[in-house]
Amino acid sequence: MSTGTPMAHYAAARRVGDFVFMSGVVAVDPGIRRAVNSYEDIPSDVLPELRQLGYVTGQMSVDVFEAPIVAQSWFVLNRIRQLAREHGGDMADVVKLVQYFRQLPHYAYFNRVRGLFFPGEPPVSTVVEVSRFLPGDEVLVEVEATMYLDPLRRGLG
Amino acid sequence: MSTGTPMAHYAAARRVGDFVFMSGVVAVDPGIRRAVNSYEDIPSDVLPELRQLGYVTGQMSVDVFEAPIVAQSWFVLNRIRQLAREHGGDMADVVKLVQYFRQLPHYAYFNRVRGLFFPGEPPVSTVVEVSRFLPGDEVLVEVEATMYLDPLRRGLG
Amino acid sequence: MSTGTPMAHYAAARRVGDFVFMSGVVAVDPGIRRAVNSYEDIPSDVLPELRQLGYVTGQMSVDVFEAPIVAQSWFVLNRIRQLAREHGGDMADVVKLVQYFRQLPHYAYFNRVRGLFFPGEPPVSTVVEVSRFLPGDEVLVEVEATMYLDPLRRGLG
Amino acid sequence: MSTGTPMAHYAAARRVGDFVFMSGVVAVDPGIRRAVNSYEDIPSDVLPELRQLGYVTGQMSVDVFEAPIVAQSWFVLNRIRQLAREHGGDMADVVKLVQYFRQLPHYAYFNRVRGLFFPGEPPVSTVVEVSRFLPGDEVLVEVEATMYLDPLRRGLG
Amino acid sequence: MSTGTPMAHYAAARRVGDFVFMSGVVAVDPGIRRAVNSYEDIPSDVLPELRQLGYVTGQMSVDVFEAPIVAQSWFVLNRIRQLAREHGGDMADVVKLVQYFRQLPHYAYFNRVRGLFFPGEPPVSTVVEVSRFLPGDEVLVEVEATMYLDPLRRGLG
Amino acid sequence: MSTGTPMAHYAAARRVGDFVFMSGVVAVDPGIRRAVNSYEDIPSDVLPELRQLGYVTGQMSVDVFEAPIVAQSWFVLNRIRQLAREHGGDMADVVKLVQYFRQLPHYAYFNRVRGLFFPGEPPVSTVVEVSRFLPGDEVLVEVEATMYLDPLRRGLG
Amino acid sequence: MSTGTPMAHYAAARRVGDFVFMSGVVAVDPGIRRAVNSYEDIPSDVLPELRQLGYVTGQMSVDVFEAPIVAQSWFVLNRIRQLAREHGGDMADVVKLVQYFRQLPHYAYFNRVRGLFFPGEPPVSTVVEVSRFLPGDEVLVEVEATMYLDPLRRGLG
Amino acid sequence: MSTGTPMAHYAAARRVGDFVFMSGVVAVDPGIRRAVNSYEDIPSDVLPELRQLGYVTGQMSVDVFEAPIVAQSWFVLNRIRQLAREHGGDMADVVKLVQYFRQLPHYAYFNRVRGLFFPGEPPVSTVVEVSRFLPGDEVLVEVEATMYLDPLRRGLG
Amino acid sequence: MSTGTPMAHYAAARRVGDFVFMSGVVAVDPGIRRAVNSYEDIPSDVLPELRQLGYVTGQMSVDVFEAPIVAQSWFVLNRIRQLAREHGGDMADVVKLVQYFRQLPHYAYFNRVRGLFFPGEPPVSTVVEVSRFLPGDEVLVEVEATMYLDPLRRGLG
Amino acid sequence: MSTGTPMAHYAAARRVGDFVFMSGVVAVDPGIRRAVNSYEDIPSDVLPELRQLGYVTGQMSVDVFEAPIVAQSWFVLNRIRQLAREHGGDMADVVKLVQYFRQLPHYAYFNRVRGLFFPGEPPVSTVVEVSRFLPGDEVLVEVEATMYLDPLRRGLG
Amino acid sequence: MSTGTPMAHYAAARRVGDFVFMSGVVAVDPGIRRAVNSYEDIPSDVLPELRQLGYVTGQMSVDVFEAPIVAQSWFVLNRIRQLAREHGGDMADVVKLVQYFRQLPHYAYFNRVRGLFFPGEPPVSTVVEVSRFLPGDEVLVEVEATMYLDPLRRGLG
Amino acid sequence: MSTGTPMAHYAAARRVGDFVFMSGVVAVDPGIRRAVNSYEDIPSDVLPELRQLGYVTGQMSVDVFEAPIVAQSWFVLNRIRQLAREHGGDMADVVKLVQYFRQLPHYAYFNRVRGLFFPGEPPVSTVVEVSRFLPGDEVLVEVEATMYLDPLRRGLG
Repeated sequence: MSTGTPMAHYAAARRVGDFVFMSGVVAVDPGIRRAVNSYEDIPSDVLPELRQLGYVTGQMSVDVFEAPIVAQSWFVLNRIRQLAREHGGDMADVVKLVQYFRQLPHYAYFNRVRGLFFPGEPPVSTVVEVSRFLPGDEVLVEVEATMYLDPLRRGLG
Repeated sequence: MSTGTPMAHYAAARRVGDFVFMSGVVAVDPGIRRAVNSYEDIPSDVLPELRQLGYVTGQMSVDVFEAPIVAQSWFVLNRIRQLAREHGGDMADVVKLVQYFRQLPHYAYFNRVRGLFFPGEPPVSTVVEVSRFLPGDEVLVEVEATMYLDPLRRGLG
Repeated sequence: MSTGTPMAHYAAARRVGDFVFMSGVVAVDPGIRRAVNSYEDIPSDVLPELRQLGYVTGQMSVDVFEAPIVAQSWFVLNRIRQLAREHGGDMADVVKLVQYFRQLPHYAYFNRVRGLFFPGEPPVSTVVEVSRFLPGDEVLVEVEATMYLDPLRRGLG
Repeated sequence: MSTGTPMAHYAAARRVGDFVFMSGVVAVDPGIRRAVNSYEDIPSDVLPELRQLGYVTGQMSVDVFEAPIVAQSWFVLNRIRQLAREHGGDMADVVKLVQYFRQLPHYAYFNRVRGLFFPGEPPVSTVVEVSRFLPGDEVLVEVEATMYLDPLRRGLG
Repeated sequence: MSTGTPMAHYAAARRVGDFVFMSGVVAVDPGIRRAVNSYEDIPSDVLPELRQLGYVTGQMSVDVFEAPIVAQSWFVLNRIRQLAREHGGDMADVVKLVQYFRQLPHYAYFNRVRGLFFPGEPPVSTVVEVSRFLPGDEVLVEVEATMYLDPLRRGLG
Repeated sequence: MSTGTPMAHYAAARRVGDFVFMSGVVAVDPGIRRAVNSYEDIPSDVLPELRQLGYVTGQMSVDVFEAPIVAQSWFVLNRIRQLAREHGGDMADVVKLVQYFRQLPHYAYFNRVRGLFFPGEPPVSTVVEVSRFLPGDEVLVEVEATMYLDPLRRGLG
Repeated sequence: MSTGTPMAHYAAARRVGDFVFMSGVVAVDPGIRRAVNSYEDIPSDVLPELRQLGYVTGQMSVDVFEAPIVAQSWFVLNRIRQLAREHGGDMADVVKLVQYFRQLPHYAYFNRVRGLFFPGEPPVSTVVEVSRFLPGDEVLVEVEATMYLDPLRRGLG
Repeated sequence: MSTGTPMAHYAAARRVGDFVFMSGVVAVDPGIRRAVNSYEDIPSDVLPELRQLGYVTGQMSVDVFEAPIVAQSWFVLNRIRQLAREHGGDMADVVKLVQYFRQLPHYAYFNRVRGLFFPGEPPVSTVVEVSRFLPGDEVLVEVEATMYLDPLRRGLG
Repeated sequence: MSTGTPMAHYAAARRVGDFVFMSGVVAVDPGIRRAVNSYEDIPSDVLPELRQLGYVTGQMSVDVFEAPIVAQSWFVLNRIRQLAREHGGDMADVVKLVQYFRQLPHYAYFNRVRGLFFPGEPPVSTVVEVSRFLPGDEVLVEVEATMYLDPLRRGLG
Repeated sequence: MSTGTPMAHYAAARRVGDFVFMSGVVAVDPGIRRAVNSYEDIPSDVLPELRQLGYVTGQMSVDVFEAPIVAQSWFVLNRIRQLAREHGGDMADVVKLVQYFRQLPHYAYFNRVRGLFFPGEPPVSTVVEVSRFLPGDEVLVEVEATMYLDPLRRGLG
Repeated sequence: MSTGTPMAHYAAARRVGDFVFMSGVVAVDPGIRRAVNSYEDIPSDVLPELRQLGYVTGQMSVDVFEAPIVAQSWFVLNRIRQLAREHGGDMADVVKLVQYFRQLPHYAYFNRVRGLFFPGEPPVSTVVEVSRFLPGDEVLVEVEATMYLDPLRRGLG
Repeated sequence: MSTGTPMAHYAAARRVGDFVFMSGVVAVDPGIRRAVNSYEDIPSDVLPELRQLGYVTGQMSVDVFEAPIVAQSWFVLNRIRQLAREHGGDMADVVKLVQYFRQLPHYAYFNRVRGLFFPGEPPVSTVVEVSRFLPGDEVLVEVEATMYLDPLRRGLG
C-alpha cells in the first residue's frame, strides 16, 4: 500500500543498486480514506479510456458489478506508474509483477486494464488468489512491482 | 504461467542485469489446454524416476490421490528448468523459489519431486497455502523462480 | 522457515551479488519442535520491551488472545536479524519484507513489534492474508526478507 | 428449455390468440447433450460480433471466466429468435423477458450480448437470481420470453 | 396458493379477456392447515394411479423419501385442474406453467405425475429452483398456471 | 426495475393489445442511486398511513428491523401505481402480481402494505423466495405486475 | 422456566429482603409439555388485545411467521405477572428485565406486546441475542425479572 | 471393489469353509477407468428391464438425476452375481448385504433395482450413509456381500 | 432394520450353518411408524432398570437430551434379543456387534444400556460414526449382530 | 472467573448491604493455568460422589465424552461454595444462579452435579446457551451466583 | 441501551432501595443514530488517554482493526459513569458488571480501557460471548451495571 | 479397539467354530492413553522398514503430514497380527478386512504399509470413509478383521 495518509509506517518504494522495490499497492485513496469502488473515485479523464474497453457503460445494473475491480485495477497500476516516475523510470522499466486477487475471476478485468499501461513488452507475472488485504474486505487486488533501471539503456553502463 | 498457447499476455521470463525473473509457473500443458492431472500427462520416460520415489504404483485407488500433485510438481519444475536453460543457466543457478499450494499437505509430495531437480545446494524457499490459481481449481501448485547468473562463476566477473 | 532442526531441505539464506535472499521464516523453535505460542516461548529478557508496547499484561484472559501473535512476531523478526548478521549485514540492510498472515487483524500486533526492529528507515512492505503455513495451523505469520549489502555504504563500491 | 433432443415432454412455444408463450430456454445443445460452456460451442461466425463487445480475447486466463456466460447468453437469445421466427414473428415482437441467473454478476455479460439482439425498442424485463436450473449446475441463465403478434402492425387489425 | 382457509388475501384465479390467470399453487390443505407430506394426505382412490408410476411402494424406507414430492405434485396439479374447471376450462386449456422447486431433483418425480394430467399436447413450461415458499420449508413445489379459453374452439370466435 | 436514472436498457412497461406488461420493479430511487431502506426515503405524507398499520414507531430498536421492508414495499407498489396510471389504468386494473422476496418472513410486512393499494378485489398472486436482485443485496423485494385494460369496462368493447 | 410439570429442580421465584428474584421464564406450557407456538396456545380472550397491535390476522401466510414470537412474548410476560402477584406485588414492581432472544428481529414483536404489560413507568432493560434455550430450539425468548417491593410505597418504611 | 484393472492389491472374493466373502464392490468399470454414471455405461440389453421400473425415460431432465444411481446399482449387483457364479453359487446363495450410500435417498432407487436380482427370499440387509468411497466422489454406493454355499442343499452335507 | 410393518423387503435374520446373521436394527417401532424418541415409546416396566443407570429423571430439561439415545439403545438391543430367541439362541450367543452412531458422544449412553443385556462375556465390538440411517435423521444408532449357535455347547457337536 | 493466578483485574466477590455478588465463575485452575477437562483435574476424594451419579466409569471411551463437563460443573460449584464461605455464608444462602452453557445438552450433566451442592431448597435459576467464555473454547460452563445473608436468619434483623 | 433518541421505551436506570439498576448500555450515539466505530466518534480530548494505552496510532491499517472496539468500550463505560453521576454516585459505587461481547478477543481491548475508569477497587465481573445486540451487527459490546449507594459511606446508615 | 487399559467393556477377539472375529482396532496405545500420532509412538526398530517405503524422512515439514497415518496404519495392522497369533493363527489366516478412514486420501499411505503385512495372498477388502472413531478426532483409521483357521490346512479337517 502506498498513499499520502499513512496506511502504516513503511517505505512506498526503495532503490537498491539498479533495482527499485515497491511495497504492495492497494487502491486506497488517501483523500477519501477508503478503498476505491466506483468510477467516480478515479479521475474523470480516464473514463474514456476505460469506456474503450467496454466498461463505464452508464447502466447502473452493469456498472455495479464491474466498477469496483475496474477502478481498483486502474488506480493500482497508475500508482505504480507514479512511483516508477518518482524513482527515475517508467512502466517500461517495471520488469516483474506479483498480482494478488481476492476472487480470481477479477483477473479478466484487471488484464484488460493492464494492457493500457503496458502497450509494449510486458513484465513477468505471477497471479494468485489469496484471502484478504489491508485495510479490509473491500480491497480486491494488490500488486507488488519490481523496477530495473538498466544502466546500459540509460547510457550509464 | 508459461505455455505455448497464450495463457495471457506477459513474458515467461526476463533477464535484468545478472538476474532472470520468471513468471509464476503452473502445470497447464499448452497441447491439451488444461491442467496436468495424471501420469499420462507427463513424458513416459520420466515415470521410472517417479517410481523410484514410490509413486506411479499402478493401483488406481492409490494413484487417484497422488498423481495430480506428483505430475504437476514434475511439470512445473521441469518448465522452470527449461526456462533456466533458455536463458543461459541451469537449476543450480536458481537461487530462490516461492511455492504456493492450494492444500499444504501437498508439500510432502512436491518436496520429494523437487529433490530430483536440486541434487546439490538447494535454493532459498518460501511456502504458503493460498486459495486458487489461474486458470482454475484443478491447479494445485504455482512456483515463482528467481535465477542468478553469477558473473564470477561464469568467468565474467 | 529456518530452524536448527531441519524443517525441510533448503537454504535459510543465500547471497547472490549484493543481495541476500532469505527463505520465508516462521516461528517454529527447533528446540521445542512446535510453533511459539506464549510469552514463555521467547527469552525472558525480551519481555520488558514487549511490555512497553502494552503486551505481556500478566492477566490470563488478556494474554491468551495476544501472546501467540506477539510472540511469533518477535521470534520471526529476531530470526531475520540473526540471518542478516550471519551474512554480514543488519536490520538496516533489510530492504524488503513480504508478510503473510492467516488473520489480517494480527497485522496490528505485528506492526507494533516490527517498530522495535526498525527504528530508522523502514523496508518496503507487502501484506497479504493467506490460508495456512508449514508446518501447521498454529503458525500465524510468515515473513520473507530481502537484504541488500550496499557496496558504497560499505566502502566497496 | 427447448432443444432437439427432448429435455422433457413439453412444448417449446405455443400460440394463443395474438400471443406466443415460450418455455424457459437454457443453453443446452441437443447435439452435445450438455450445457454450452465455451466459445467453441457456438457457431464460429458469431465470434466476431462477440469480439466487438470485448469478449473472445484468445487469452485462456481471461476466457476461462467469461466464455461460459457469454456463450450461454448468445445461445439462449438466439434460440428465442429461432422460436420467434418459427411462429411468424421476430425479436421486435418479443415484448417481455423474465431472466433468471444463478449469479447476478453475470447480468453484466448478458446485458451486453442482449444488446445485439434488441437494437431497437427493448422488451420489459424482470431479473432475479435463483438457485439452479435443469439439467444441472453448469447452466447459468434461463430466459422465458413472451411474444405479441400485433394484428394492427401486420395489417390484420 | 389457493385453499379454502385463507392463506392470505388474494384471488385464486381471475379471468381477463380470454385468459385466466391463476395464483401460484402450493400443496397446503385447508383442512389440515399444513403442507401435504404423505400418501395419506391425498385421496386414497388416487393411489393406484401413482402406484402405476412405481410410487406408493408400501415400503417405509422407500416411501419416506418419495411421498412428500409425489403427493405434493399430485395435489398441486389437481388443484389447478379444479380451478380450470371452475372457470369453464380444463387441463387442455392450460397453456403455460411456471414450476418452482426447492430441490431440482424433485423435477423427475413431478414430471411423471404431470404426465397423468396432460396426456395430450403439453403446455409450455419453465422450471427453476428457488429458495423457499409460503408458508414454510415443508413446501417443495409451487406452480403458476395460465389458461386460455380459445373462443374459436368454443364456437365463439 | 424502473427509475429515472437508467438501471439498464429496457422498457419499464409496454402495452400489447389490452394488456400492459411491466418490468420487475425494485425500490431503487433514481434520485439517491441506492435502495430505499428507511422511512426517510419515502414521502413524509405517507407515514401516517403506515403508522396506522403499526409501523413507523419512532423506537430505533424496533424500526431498524422493520423500516427497510416496509418502505420498500410501499415504494414498489407506489411505482406500479404510477406505471398503471401512465398507461391509462389504475391499481384496480392490475390483475396479477409475481412477488419475489429474499427472505420470506418479509411477506407479512409486504402483505399489510399491499392492503393499502388494493382495498377492493385483489389480483392473483404468486410468492417465492429467491436469492438476490439487481442491483445488490440491499434490495429485499421485486414485484412484476400485469395490467389488463378491460375494453368492456371502458366502454370500448 | 416455571411450569407445573417440573422442567428441572429449582425455585420459580424467591424473596430475599425487599427483592424477589425470578428464574428465567420461557413459554413452555406444563399442560401441553412443549413450547407455545400458535395463537391457539394462549387464552382466546387475549387475542383481541393482540389483534389491536395488528397481529392475529387470520391469514395463514402472515400468522405463520408472527404467531410463535407473539404468543411466546405474551405467555412469558403473563407468567411473570402471575409470579409477581403470588409474591405480593404487580407488574409495576418489576424493576428490571434481562431479555434473551434467539433472533434479535423478534425484539420488535416482543416490544409491542410488552407495552400491554407496562403501560406506566417501564423497568430497566437488557437485550441480547444468544444461541438457545431449554428445553429446545422452538423456544424463542427467555426473560429474567427482578421485583422490588418498596417498603415505603407499601407503608412499611 | 473388483474390476479388471487393479483398483488396488486385494482379492475380489475368497472362499473359506462354506462361506465366500466378497470385497466391497463399487461401480467402476475397468474398461473406462471411471465410475459408471449414465445408462450408456451399462449393457443396452439391460435397459428394457430398468425401463420397466420407470427409469431410462429418454427425457434428459429426468434421467440426469436418476441415471447415476440406477446404473451404479445395476452394475454393482451384477458384479456380485458374477462373483457368486465364479465361486459356484448364485444370487440365491448370497445371504447378507452391507450397503453403504453417500446419500440415503438413493436407497429408494437401489431398492427397486435390487428387486430384479432377488426375486425370491431376500438376504439380510444393513444400510448406512457414509462419507465417501474409493476412488472418488462420483461413486454413490458400495456393497459388501457374503455368500453361503449350503452343503446340504448341494447334497454334500 | 427389522419391524412388523415392512421397512423394506429383506429378511430380519437368517441362519446359515451355525451362524445367524441379522440385518442392521434401528429403533423404528412398527406400531407408531417413526423412530423411538422418548421414554414413553418403550415398555414402562423397563424404566426402573434404566432409572438404575441414572436415566429417566423425570426432569424435562434433563430427559429431553437423554431420552432419545437411551430409549433407542434399549429398543435396538431388545430387538436383537428377540431375534436371537426366535432363532434358538440368546444374548450370550451373540458374538459380534457392529455399532454405527450418528454422533459418537452417544456411545457413552449406549454403553451403559448395553451392560444390561450382556452381564457376562461381551461380544467383539466395532464402533464407527457415520452420516445417517434409514428412514431418517431421527435415527441415532444402528446395530448389526452376528450370532453363533455353538453345536458343542448345545450338545450337538 | 475467580482463580489464584489472575485471570484479569476484578474482584471475585463483593458484599454490598446483605448481598454478596460474585463474578462469573469458570473452571480454570490457577495451578495448571488451563481449563479443567478430566477427572484427574479435580480432587480424588470427590470422585466417589460423582461415581454415585454414574460418572467416572473408568472406561476411556465413555469418560472421554463426559469428564470435561462433569469435572467443570463440580469445579465451578465448589468454587462458589468457597466464595460463599469466605463471605460468611454457605450454599443455602446462594439464592440465584445464572448458568451459561456452550452446548445446552451439557445441562443434563450439570443438573445432576448441582444436586450434590443444593440438597435443600434450590436457588432461582436462569439457563441460556451462549457462544464462548474466557479464556477459550475449552470452557463449557460459566455460573454467576448471588448470595443473600439474611439478617433475620442470622439473628441480626 | 441508553441514548437521547429513544432506542425503545424503557428506563435507562432506576433506583430501588440502595441499589441503582442500569439497562444494558451499547455504544449508539443518539446524535449520529448509529454505533460508534471510529476514533472520530468520541470526544477528541479523550484520545491522548487512549494513546497512552497504545491505541489511536494514526496508522490506518492498524486503527481499522482496533478503533471500533476501543471507541465502543470508552463510550459504554463513559455512559455508565454519566448514569452513575445522575443518580448520585460515581464509578467507585458501581459494584457489578455483566459484560457481553460478540467476539471474545475484544475483551483484551475492553480490559485496558476499563482500567481507566476503575483505578481503585474493581467491580465483580461476568464476561460472556453472545450472538448479537440491538440495534444491529456493528455493536460489539454491551455492559449492564449495578450500583450500590452505601448508606454508611454516605453517613446515612 | 483392543488395548491393555480398557477402552470399554468388550472382547478384543473371539473364536467361534473355525472363525476368529476381531473387534475394530484403532491405534490407541494403552501406555500413553492417546492415539498414536508420530514415528516416536511406534517401536524404533520398525522405522527402517517404513523408511523403505519412502516415509520417516526426518524433514519436519514432510513428516508432519505423513507420520500420523503411517504410524497408525502400522500400529493397527501390528495389533491385528498380535491378536491373530494369540488365537493360533497368523496374518495369512486373516481373510477379510473392513477398513474405515476419516479421510480417504489416507488409503494410499495405509495401502503401502499393509503390503508389509501381507506379502502373499491378500484378504478381501472393503474401504469406506466415515465420520469419526472412538475415542476422538485424532483417530484416522479403524480396521475390523476376520480370521479363518482352516482345519484342512492345519491337518484337522
